[in-house]
Amino acid sequence: MSVNYFSSNFKLGILGGGQLGKMMLYHTRKYDIYTCVLDPSKDAPARLACDEFTVGDLMDFDTVLEFGKQVDILTIEIENVNVDALETLEDEGIKIFPSSKTLRTIQNKAHQKLFYRDHNIPTADFSRFAYTSEIEEAIENGGLSYPFVWKSARFGYDGTGVKIVKRYTDLIDLPNVECIAEDLIRFKNELAVIVARNEKGDLKTYPVVEMEFHPEANQVEYVICPARIPNEIAKKAELVALKTAAAFKHVGLLAVEMFQTQDNNILVNEVAPRPHNSGHYSIEGSYTDQFEQHIRAILGLPLGKTDSKVAGVMVNLVGAENYNGNVVYKNIENILAMDGVTPHIYGKKQTRPFRKMGHVTIVNKDINEARKIAEKVKRTIEVISE
Amino acid sequence: MSVNYFSSNFKLGILGGGQLGKMMLYHTRKYDIYTCVLDPSKDAPARLACDEFTVGDLMDFDTVLEFGKQVDILTIEIENVNVDALETLEDEGIKIFPSSKTLRTIQNKAHQKLFYRDHNIPTADFSRFAYTSEIEEAIENGGLSYPFVWKSARFGYDGTGVKIVKRYTDLIDLPNVECIAEDLIRFKNELAVIVARNEKGDLKTYPVVEMEFHPEANQVEYVICPARIPNEIAKKAELVALKTAAAFKHVGLLAVEMFQTQDNNILVNEVAPRPHNSGHYSIEGSYTDQFEQHIRAILGLPLGKTDSKVAGVMVNLVGAENYNGNVVYKNIENILAMDGVTPHIYGKKQTRPFRKMGHVTIVNKDINEARKIAEKVKRTIEVISE
Repeated sequence: MSVNYFSSNFKLGILGGGQLGKMMLYHTRKYDIYTCVLDPSKDAPARLACDEFTVGDLMDFDTVLEFGKQVDILTIEIENVNVDALETLEDEGIKIFPSSKTLRTIQNKAHQKLFYRDHNIPTADFSRFAYTSEIEEAIENGGLSYPFVWKSARFGYDGTGVKIVKRYTDLIDLPNVECIAEDLIRFKNELAVIVARNEKGDLKTYPVVEMEFHPEANQVEYVICPARIPNEIAKKAELVALKTAAAFKHVGLLAVEMFQTQDNNILVNEVAPRPHNSGHYSIEGSYTDQFEQHIRAILGLPLGKTDSKVAGVMVNLVGAENYNGNVVYKNIENILAMDGVTPHIYGKKQTRPFRKMGHVTIVNKDINEARKIAEKVKRTIEVISE
Repeated sequence: MSVNYFSSNFKLGILGGGQLGKMMLYHTRKYDIYTCVLDPSKDAPARLACDEFTVGDLMDFDTVLEFGKQVDILTIEIENVNVDALETLEDEGIKIFPSSKTLRTIQNKAHQKLFYRDHNIPTADFSRFAYTSEIEEAIENGGLSYPFVWKSARFGYDGTGVKIVKRYTDLIDLPNVECIAEDLIRFKNELAVIVARNEKGDLKTYPVVEMEFHPEANQVEYVICPARIPNEIAKKAELVALKTAAAFKHVGLLAVEMFQTQDNNILVNEVAPRPHNSGHYSIEGSYTDQFEQHIRAILGLPLGKTDSKVAGVMVNLVGAENYNGNVVYKNIENILAMDGVTPHIYGKKQTRPFRKMGHVTIVNKDINEARKIAEKVKRTIEVISE
C-alpha cells in the first residue's frame, strides 16, 4: 500500500520559507500534510502555517543535512541551497524533488546552457568564460561582438547578474566572475509554460502564458494567461517545455521561460524547478493552483486539471522607487473594489525599491477586460513606506 | 485615514479554531493580517497559520474577555461563545462581528423564531415550551398535533437537538429542556443564500444554493451551486435572505437556510452569522471565496464579486459508521484523479461515525457533469479508521 500522506506520520520538508513556501502551505494545510520549513530568517513569510519552522542557513551543509534527515520528502522554494547535502540525503533514501542533479545544473547558468545544447533544446547561442575579463579578449579576436547579454554563471537575484552589453564601457563595472555571453534575442514575446510531472510519469502542462513588457522600462509588467499568440506558436512552446522537462527527468513543477523570436522560433531562456511567478495567476484562474499541483506531483498523487476556469492577468507588487522602511500598501482598498481582483501580500515588513512585496491577480471571463482592469490596478496601488 | 490592516499593528481575533477558523486563516495569511485564535483544544485545526494561538474555554467569561481585549476586531467561527463577555468588550469599544445582540438571538432557537415573527420574516409556525414535558399537555388540549419538529432552544450539534415527532413514543427520550415545536414542512427544496455586508452598508449576495437530500437517509448529500430552481424562486429566496440580514443589521456573512414549500413559498429555517457549510463550494467556484468575503466584510473593506466562475457541488466528508479512532481517508488518491475535484481535510486526528472530517468540492463548467462526478466521489472515498 502507498504512504498515507493525509493525517499520518509522513513529513514534508521545504527548503526556503519565502513567499513561494508560504503559498505552498495553503495546500499542505488543506490536505493536512505535516510540513517542516527551513529558512535563514526568523520572520520568513512561511514561518506560520507549517508544523515545524527551523531557522538556519540553506547553504550550510550540516544545517540542510540535519533538517532533511527528519522528513520523508524534501522540496525547495528557492534554488540557492546546499546541493552536496541533498546528494547525501538522496543516498540515504530521502526523496528530493527537484533532484540534486537538476539543482546542480540549474545553479550554474553556464551548465544550464550546456545542458540545453547537449539535449538539443533550442536556446540562444552563447560562449562561456571563466572570468568576465576574458570577454574583452574574445571581442578583440572577433569571437564575440556587441551587443550581447552578460550573465553571471552563479545566481543573482532580481535581475542582478544579468546585463545587456552594447559597448565596451558596459563591461567595466561587471564583477570578474564565471559568466556567459549570450546572443541578444530581439524577441516578439516572452512566454512560459509550467510542466507538472510525478514519479509515475503522469504529465500535464499549464496553458502558455505571456509576459508583457513595459515598453520603456524593459521590465515584465503583466503575466497573461492564456498568451495572446496563435495556436501553432503555443503548441510549439508547449512541446519545447515538455522536451525540457523530459531531459531533466523532472518530478514536481518545472517552469520553462522561452522567447518567441521574430521568425517564430522558440528558444528556452531559463527554467525554475518549482512553482514560479509566471504561474501565480493559477491560484484564482486554474482548476488546480500551481502550488497544489507541485505538492500533488512530488507526493506522487494524481495531477489536477491544468485548464483555466477564467482568464487571468498577474501584476507584481514591487517596492516603489525612493521608499525604504515599514511597508504601506497605498490604495489597496481601491483595488479590492475592482472586479475579480485579489491581492497577495507576502508579509515582508520592510519595503525597498523594486523588492517583490506581493502580487495581484485579476480574473475575468474576458481576457481583454482582465487586462484593462490590470492596468487600472497598476496605476492605483503603490508600495511605499510609512 | 482608515486603519491599515495590512502589515500594521492591527489584530484580528477569532473565537473558535475549528475548520471554519482554519479556512479563514488562508486569507488572513494572504492579506498578511495579524490574527489571534482562541479554542479549547490544543490540537484545533486553526492552531497553525494564526500569529497567536490561545487554548481556552469559549464559554468562560474571563477567558473570552481577556482574549478579546488584545484585539481590534473580533469575529467567531462558532456561535457557542460567552455573549456576556462580548457585550462587555463592545462597551469597551472593540468591534465584534457578528454583534453580541445577534449571537444572543441566534443562540436560543425560540428567540430566533420570535425574531423572525417580529420582523415579518416568513418562517414555519411554532409553539414555545419552557420544558419538553409541557408538549404532551398541549397535544391533549388540541393546541398541537403530530407530526411536528421538536427543537431544543439551546444549541445542539450535528443534528442532536432536533427530532421529528410523529407519535407519542418519539417524545419519551427527549431531554426535558426549553424547546419549540415547529410545523413539519414537506419542502420541495432546501435552499441557502449567503449575504455579505460591511459596516458602510455595502451588500452582496451569493447565488442561491440547493441542498440535495439523500432519498432515504434524510441527510444533506450535496450542496449545489447554482440551485436548479426557476429564476423567480431564486429571486424570492434572495429577497428573503436580504430582509433577514437587514433585520439583524448584520455585518459579516449571514448564511440563511430556507425551505421552498410545495406551493413555492420561502420560509427561513435558520441562520448562521459566519461562513457556512453551504458556502464551501465558493473556495473553488466563486470569484470571492466566502472566507475571504467574511474578512473583507468585518474589516470594512470593499466586498468581492460573488458570481461563480464555474458551477460547484460540495460533498461533506463524514466519518463512516462503525469506525472510531485514527482517521484514514480511503481512496482519496482515486478522487484526486477525477476532473476538478479538491478535497479539504480539516485535520481532526480521530474519526467517529458521522463526524465532519472534511469536504470535497467538484467544479465544472457544466453543473450536471459536476453533479455526476460528485456522485462518483461519494461512492469512492471513505472516512474510516486505521
